[in-house]
Amino acid sequence: MDAEILATGSELVLGRIANTNAAWLSRELEALGIPVRFHTAVGDRFDDLLAALRLAAARVRLVLVTGGLGPTADDLTREVASRFLRRRLVRRPELVQLLRERFAARRIQMAPSNLRQADIPDGALLVPNPTGTAPGFIGRRGRARVVALPGVPREMELMFRETVAPYLRAERRERRAIHLRDLLVYGIPESTLGDRLGPLFAPEGNPSVGTLLRSGTIVVRVRAEAATESLARRRVDARARRIRARLGELVYGEGEGGLEDAVLQLLAERRRTLAVAESCTGGLVAHKLTNVPGASASLLEGTVVYSNEAKTRRLGVSRRLLASHGAVSAPVAEAMALGAARRAGSDFAVAVTGIAGPAGGTPDQPVGLVFVAVAGPSRVHVEEYHFAGERVALKERSANAALNLLRQELLRS
Amino acid sequence: MDAEILATGSELVLGRIANTNAAWLSRELEALGIPVRFHTAVGDRFDDLLAALRLAAARVRLVLVTGGLGPTADDLTREVASRFLRRRLVRRPELVQLLRERFAARRIQMAPSNLRQADIPDGALLVPNPTGTAPGFIGRRGRARVVALPGVPREMELMFRETVAPYLRAERRERRAIHLRDLLVYGIPESTLGDRLGPLFAPEGNPSVGTLLRSGTIVVRVRAEAATESLARRRVDARARRIRARLGELVYGEGEGGLEDAVLQLLAERRRTLAVAESCTGGLVAHKLTNVPGASASLLEGTVVYSNEAKTRRLGVSRRLLASHGAVSAPVAEAMALGAARRAGSDFAVAVTGIAGPAGGTPDQPVGLVFVAVAGPSRVHVEEYHFAGERVALKERSANAALNLLRQELLRS
Repeated sequence: MDAEILATGSELVLGRIANTNAAWLSRELEALGIPVRFHTAVGDRFDDLLAALRLAAARVRLVLVTGGLGPTADDLTREVASRFLRRRLVRRPELVQLLRERFAARRIQMAPSNLRQADIPDGALLVPNPTGTAPGFIGRRGRARVVALPGVPREMELMFRETVAPYLRAERRERRAIHLRDLLVYGIPESTLGDRLGPLFAPEGNPSVGTLLRSGTIVVRVRAEAATESLARRRVDARARRIRARLGELVYGEGEGGLEDAVLQLLAERRRTLAVAESCTGGLVAHKLTNVPGASASLLEGTVVYSNEAKTRRLGVSRRLLASHGAVSAPVAEAMALGAARRAGSDFAVAVTGIAGPAGGTPDQPVGLVFVAVAGPSRVHVEEYHFAGERVALKERSANAALNLLRQELLRS
Repeated sequence: MDAEILATGSELVLGRIANTNAAWLSRELEALGIPVRFHTAVGDRFDDLLAALRLAAARVRLVLVTGGLGPTADDLTREVASRFLRRRLVRRPELVQLLRERFAARRIQMAPSNLRQADIPDGALLVPNPTGTAPGFIGRRGRARVVALPGVPREMELMFRETVAPYLRAERRERRAIHLRDLLVYGIPESTLGDRLGPLFAPEGNPSVGTLLRSGTIVVRVRAEAATESLARRRVDARARRIRARLGELVYGEGEGGLEDAVLQLLAERRRTLAVAESCTGGLVAHKLTNVPGASASLLEGTVVYSNEAKTRRLGVSRRLLASHGAVSAPVAEAMALGAARRAGSDFAVAVTGIAGPAGGTPDQPVGLVFVAVAGPSRVHVEEYHFAGERVALKERSANAALNLLRQELLRS
């Protein structure tokens, strides 16, 4: 079986939700042994949507439609699916009841148009939505299956996991089990990772090993098929172990996290606290760390110190040091980290100073020059980086470099 | 003419670049009077890509392909376009020369595979890439035109603006001019904005007025067609003026910026300085502000104070106040803002304190409760908010609320 993801709704197309959903669904489907071959986004035009659905059903066996299940007139997925499946829409009493209860609980008057959300194509399998008002459904015509899910990521994900995935598992012809694992890698260009992995890199093997990029880090995806789940898992385990041995500290985690998750886990395991001092990243390092639930247990405080004045007043960086080396220098990065740790009373501190541009660069100190310092209980370590890109990308690269240097120092401590 | 955007490359599909490109291109094409009807993403499979290109050329007149122009074996756009256009690839000497110079300037040995980037379909129009190594091209077969551009957003955007847009403008059959303007709105749900605009809201009119969502704010897009550019612009001007009169301060800007751009512009105009104190947003307000070039002129410093201890030590919030009202309270938000302004010596300060979850909520103080305080030269203003969503979404909503309250106080000052 292969699949196509069909996203509807002009806002979904123009916003980023459709693509986030597609990335999530692609991985889940891959884990079920169903490759996603196409991803199509279409605005709210009935004819375009119907044509896209017909085409998808002609070229793949499974079409996942996201979005277009809301109550307004431009939510067309129910009608389009009904036409495609050649089954009229029927209003399901249990869904009407559920809608009435939801609205009553929120003490909101239900508009008559909301009842459209209780309609699904005759004969289709209902996909309950435990957290929202739009249910989904699974319909079938010939060899094609159409799964309709809402566009709201949290609702869609829960419904896929609870109803669609079990359905697809039960439907699978092949009895072979699949196991999938993502190793998260930072600190090596993707183009040289293949060489480094040597024969362990095998996009077409079983286990297969491939790479993809995700927000500045690399995902090494290991996937095995076998007669049983435990055998597939063992194959993945064995290959993942060899990859980890080959890559060492370049592997910072598994699954879906970022470098910030790895850092916070190390801090928690070692019962260490952290302070952050940021110049060119302007709060991004702290923002990334505080995206992780429970960050407050380790992160004592953060400071954004753009001006020399603030570096002196907030972190105790001496004016003489700033005057003699300049704000973007290894000694100043070091002084910022030491000052942050001392003033916050933390075990570790990470400091970033650099030139994010577009202005402020010189031939000696070009845009993209960044220093990161990590102060720990036993030493201060400083690294110099030269990044390419524009302002926002430079902030992102600098923040990842800072988190990774901190991770390395934590591993050494 | 209508268009389809076809994104290639598995990384583009799984990452978010494809969709960012599609959103950008959709707007540019709309401004040229070319509606984008489909957006398709396909992995690096020759047959799938060729089928998608054929289909696109059959259902729209203009196909924009992004990605797949790099030097590696899985970059297939050149070959696929060559097959579709029925024109062989020819190596262009001027492109070979350019590639050699680029690599020489960076002192990197050029691999033979890089020369593939000098190949374009015979008879196609070259689209120069002033900032990268992958040139684009425009080919034609029958009534369909195929525009191939690299997937790197900055390169793609520059090439579209410099070569593709002028080409499309010259090719347009209709002689009517189009003018487009985006009014940026914050502080009203999209569902009630239509009512508020009344007859000014006209998705099908000329000028047309529609809405779309963009990262927590609403874009009101005004578009007019007329015999001349100046007439179209006057129509847009007139409608935009009436919309602004109706919405007042809800309109925070025009074009592509965020609330942070509006805030920094007001600060610069009024020659005022700013300090930021963040608890639940964890650095996101400072991060947003520092994404804007030149933010350092107004933003003196930022502080991330998660713990009560840090609130006291860094901002001078009294322990008694924290004990009697709790860290998530109006008095503490106020004290944080006053402390931040005083310690930084800034004219304004914005402070955020709240419960981002998932843990830490109580029946009295649920997850999503947020206080924002803005301290200015003449007063301190505090607002209480109740947001829905999970941790990262709550941080985003809180940061936008903080920037907007700051904007309102700046307007009043």
